[in-house]
Amino acid sequence: MTDAAKQQVPIDEAVSGLPVPKTERGRRTLRALLDAAALEFGASGFHATGITDITRRAGVALGSFYTYFASKEDIFRALVTDLSAQVKAHVTPRVEEAPDALSREKAALGGYLDFVSQQQLIYRIIDEAEFVAPDAYQGHYRSTVARVTARLEAGAARGELKEGVGEVEAWAIAGMNVFLGLRYGVWGKDRDLAEVLARAHELVADGLRRR
Amino acid sequence: MTDAAKQQVPIDEAVSGLPVPKTERGRRTLRALLDAAALEFGASGFHATGITDITRRAGVALGSFYTYFASKEDIFRALVTDLSAQVKAHVTPRVEEAPDALSREKAALGGYLDFVSQQQLIYRIIDEAEFVAPDAYQGHYRSTVARVTARLEAGAARGELKEGVGEVEAWAIAGMNVFLGLRYGVWGKDRDLAEVLARAHELVADGLRRR
Repeated sequence: MTDAAKQQVPIDEAVSGLPVPKTERGRRTLRALLDAAALEFGASGFHATGITDITRRAGVALGSFYTYFASKEDIFRALVTDLSAQVKAHVTPRVEEAPDALSREKAALGGYLDFVSQQQLIYRIIDEAEFVAPDAYQGHYRSTVARVTARLEAGAARGELKEGVGEVEAWAIAGMNVFLGLRYGVWGKDRDLAEVLARAHELVADGLRRR
Repeated sequence: MTDAAKQQVPIDEAVSGLPVPKTERGRRTLRALLDAAALEFGASGFHATGITDITRRAGVALGSFYTYFASKEDIFRALVTDLSAQVKAHVTPRVEEAPDALSREKAALGGYLDFVSQQQLIYRIIDEAEFVAPDAYQGHYRSTVARVTARLEAGAARGELKEGVGEVEAWAIAGMNVFLGLRYGVWGKDRDLAEVLARAHELVADGLRRR
């Protein structure tokens, strides 16, 4: 995880569903465990990673691990929720600054491309969740798409987007963003991300705009 | 695999890169092994599946397995190529019948939604390839997107689509199709696929059409 990403995510939002540590020291330990887990799971995968790989990298005693997590599955699941919250924390401020429905979608895609091009491991972790923690995998996409749906419905209600735009278009846009991030942010950086963003957004904007 | 899917895919196309068996009996054995592998890997995942699970389900002797494949990794990789070819075989005839660039994209998405709603296991297998056979995983998406890119570029050259439409739009459309298939074809069949297709295609058509 980059320092920028770490600073952006308050731990109470980052690991929703887990008890939030009461002390600053506890919050730092939990953050260190999640960041170490991202690096270890991202590099070696779930099966080849041991709990001691995570605690060693985090500089945390093995006993402390069990203060926060019951098992390797448990920290993996928390990590997926944490990464989902990191994406949201990175994208949301840009979206909220945008003046209208179409520029909000452009800000969301731009923020996402920016995030994944810095956090190359996110795909390996989220995608492995399909097998290791299917509920967390579905949860990540369903909550992401729920945010997109709400944005699109609000834009349609204000008359900026076509009538009836909502959930189906939100799944379409989420898939588009995920694939563009994988191809141009992770697999190959052979194309300027600003150009990718401009081209993709033209498709979305012309596809959604009310005429 | 459904009978319909089996009949559509000639084995020489289905497992490109493998030697094509010279006899009809050999082709049937190879087909049985790949279909059994799809069911076993799809249900239990790569790690929990043994070669004997596949040969038992296929009704093929263990020795025959090694006539075609060197290892479990080897049949998994062939299966990804085979599924990729099955999608292509299912979608291509519909695309070729469509009269113009926009209706070709609609035919492609319609064919894909239809395929995945019958072949629920395809996502688990292709997605696990990201970890088990990353080259086959990338190969599946790169070859799929290359076909979409060629269609879009041809449509732009004929003046039906916006100038400059090509690879970026193709990755966007591929991601859209994959997510719509996952959500409405596999996770939940709570929405009429014809309605999903109509809504998604309106976005794509208005996004790509030359004005």
